[in-house]
Amino acid sequence: MIETDILIIGAGPTGLFTVFEAGLLKMKCHLIDALPQPGGQCSELYPKKPIYDIPAFPEVLAGDLVDNLMKQIEPFEPGFTLGERADTIEEQEDGTFIVTTNKGTIHKAPVVAIAGGLGSFEPRKPQISNIADYEDKGVVYVIRDPEVYRDQRVVLAGGGDSALDWAIFLADVASEVTLVHRRNEFRGALDSAEKVAELAKAGKINLITEAEVTDIFGEGKVEAVRINHKTQGELIKETDHFIPLFGLLPKLGPIANWGLEIEKNAIKVNNALDYQTNREGIYAIGDVNTYPGKLKLILCGFHEATLMCQSAYKRINPGKKFVMKYTTVGGVTGFDGSHKVAKKDQVINISEL
Amino acid sequence: MIETDILIIGAGPTGLFTVFEAGLLKMKCHLIDALPQPGGQCSELYPKKPIYDIPAFPEVLAGDLVDNLMKQIEPFEPGFTLGERADTIEEQEDGTFIVTTNKGTIHKAPVVAIAGGLGSFEPRKPQISNIADYEDKGVVYVIRDPEVYRDQRVVLAGGGDSALDWAIFLADVASEVTLVHRRNEFRGALDSAEKVAELAKAGKINLITEAEVTDIFGEGKVEAVRINHKTQGELIKETDHFIPLFGLLPKLGPIANWGLEIEKNAIKVNNALDYQTNREGIYAIGDVNTYPGKLKLILCGFHEATLMCQSAYKRINPGKKFVMKYTTVGGVTGFDGSHKVAKKDQVINISEL
Ligand SMILES: Cc1cc2nc3c(=O)[nH]c(=O)nc-3n(C[C@H](O)[C@H](O)[C@H](O)COP(=O)(O)OP(=O)(O)OC[C@H]3O[C@@H](n4cnc5c(N)ncnc54)[C@H](O)[C@@H]3O)c2cc1C
Ligand SMILES: Cc1cc2nc3c(=O)[nH]c(=O)nc-3n(C[C@H](O)[C@H](O)[C@H](O)COP(=O)(O)OP(=O)(O)OC[C@H]3O[C@@H](n4cnc5c(N)ncnc54)[C@H](O)[C@@H]3O)c2cc1C
Repeated sequence: MIETDILIIGAGPTGLFTVFEAGLLKMKCHLIDALPQPGGQCSELYPKKPIYDIPAFPEVLAGDLVDNLMKQIEPFEPGFTLGERADTIEEQEDGTFIVTTNKGTIHKAPVVAIAGGLGSFEPRKPQISNIADYEDKGVVYVIRDPEVYRDQRVVLAGGGDSALDWAIFLADVASEVTLVHRRNEFRGALDSAEKVAELAKAGKINLITEAEVTDIFGEGKVEAVRINHKTQGELIKETDHFIPLFGLLPKLGPIANWGLEIEKNAIKVNNALDYQTNREGIYAIGDVNTYPGKLKLILCGFHEATLMCQSAYKRINPGKKFVMKYTTVGGVTGFDGSHKVAKKDQVINISEL
Repeated sequence: MIETDILIIGAGPTGLFTVFEAGLLKMKCHLIDALPQPGGQCSELYPKKPIYDIPAFPEVLAGDLVDNLMKQIEPFEPGFTLGERADTIEEQEDGTFIVTTNKGTIHKAPVVAIAGGLGSFEPRKPQISNIADYEDKGVVYVIRDPEVYRDQRVVLAGGGDSALDWAIFLADVASEVTLVHRRNEFRGALDSAEKVAELAKAGKINLITEAEVTDIFGEGKVEAVRINHKTQGELIKETDHFIPLFGLLPKLGPIANWGLEIEKNAIKVNNALDYQTNREGIYAIGDVNTYPGKLKLILCGFHEATLMCQSAYKRINPGKKFVMKYTTVGGVTGFDGSHKVAKKDQVINISEL
């Protein structure tokens, strides 16, 4: 069991900055995220794009923003449970919470901060009626270990960077790679598209465009798929694996069943005070919450996280008073023993000069 | 008369960032500040010190933060009335406001955003009973044009950088420079202190430490001051000017009489919605406001400014709907004609490769 002061669901920019503000108040944090890496939407959806409305950054790439936040929180040694979705929450008699993930990892904390953004990222699935029957039996939506496909036949579907990149990579690993895409146009890096076109000409990738996979066949595991071509009609393709790479989409998911007031797919909070939900000790900050005038902006999540930490401090340290000091004045003391502090004004004894 | 959409009182970090958020909503801004430069406390009190709690800046000098904000708002061409204090506000029949400064500059706008921080910066004055009688008659607290002192006798008082820097500068301009300081220790840059000690040894500065100016004499203008030395007793020093440089301190000042609800020297606002004060069309954001859970932090001012602009938009454009677009998606179009925008995903036609 993982124990911490503030358990943060979601390692997007809001969840990450919470670690810093909590750290200033001497509270430890642990983050759970369904994605394999921190950064939320910034890392998953647009890491290479510039953001223009982060205060004091005329321009910053979303990926760099996340890197900066990771560097800023480093002294406070956050823990991470990545690639797992927080599924259930249970309040204990002593008022602490037990949060369990879809993989069974158990976390315990007196305060839970939901910074779940638009929800946990789930793969976008193609509309094939029997696809659920084949999940993990030849069908996956995310490639984790490419060695699984060595000397196997693979059908990939999709038209973005990850479909292009995996087709290129697997061309050297699998015995046969087929890439199926609805259009002739791919949405991705030019050099990846060029490489795929080249491998297709060399016969190392079967490129089937203006086509869709519409059916899966097989006894207990994938044995073939039906491919429907816009002009050439149907084709049955034998294969060991079918991997649709249509991107990830956020879904509020299990949090919707945590007994929290939900409005328009977001969690209602008390924005007049501390961004607490209707359940005491459970806060919601960043894109995941809603209140009158709410804006789903990164800079708003930062403010919400900061105010929330003050309230969490009172819950965790009842009766104890904390005198806030500016970081410029008091410095930042990490749990790792590091200490950053501004140089004091120089005092010079003029009679000694 | 200066007309604008949002008139911002205070060019600290909060006021500056307001220009950006207003600009995204196509509203123009003008800022008034009592200080001669933008940046508020960051520029006036600690420009060379690092701040550690600006999100995504593991460390940033306060002065650099201000420079970055100035760069970020540049496309929105803010106007500035600097070195003047906003003194009075009058609501017109059409609901717009007229704000007049202590120097008589008149501004008109449908929305006023008070981002006045701890107040306008006023000089800290020495406790000399008759000093007010000599203000602008030999006594000033801020040196604007050093040429005024050419071939005149000047007594400076203070122990910080500005006392040291002006003593050095005026040693070459004035006919006689005396620097009086209560202690032997100066608080400032080492090289300035060294230079003063050197000029004192060379007889170009009268350095009188462990002493205080306690009285001013003169008929209608400064003719002499009384200097009280810790061990050597009193001394009367003839002079044309007496310039105490004891730093600037913020004072809420005239804004306290604008008919706004004040609590603990700050303006009460509706933090559950838009940071509006009890007077419709007048908002208060940043350090100057108060509400339950308020934190006087820079990052909080950024959030407050952002929400406030949405409400101001509705007041300025009644009935008009604005669809918020992420800057990453919609880009930033300045009033100066500039346009910054993220590169769109590349769409590549694979059949042409
Ligand atoms: C294309 C695009 C452009 C954008 N441009 C801008 C911009 O210019 N300016 C701006 O301010 N904002 C912009 N945004 C919005 C910005 O990205 C979000 O406001 C921000 O990411 C919200 O941060 P967050 O930490 O609250 O949530 P998110 O970034 O959404 O992170 C939430 C995290 O929680 C995880 N999670 C959720 N539920 C669970 C669960 N049950 N278990 C485990 N993990 C879970 C998710 O996997 C996710 O990683 C843009 C968004 C997009 C998509
Ligand atoms: C030594 C020190 C260290 C700090 N460290 C940190 C830190 O680490 N992190 C952090 O977040 N914050 C820190 N702060 C606080 C931070 O500086 C303030 O929160 C921030 O400056 C507030 O910004 P603001 O724009 O609201 O107000 P201000 O910066 O105070 O600016 C207000 C401006 O309004 C002007 N003004 C007011 N009234 C009038 C008027 N009637 N007419 C004309 N002009 C007027 C003033 O002259 C001033 O320039 C620190 C402050 C100090 C003094």
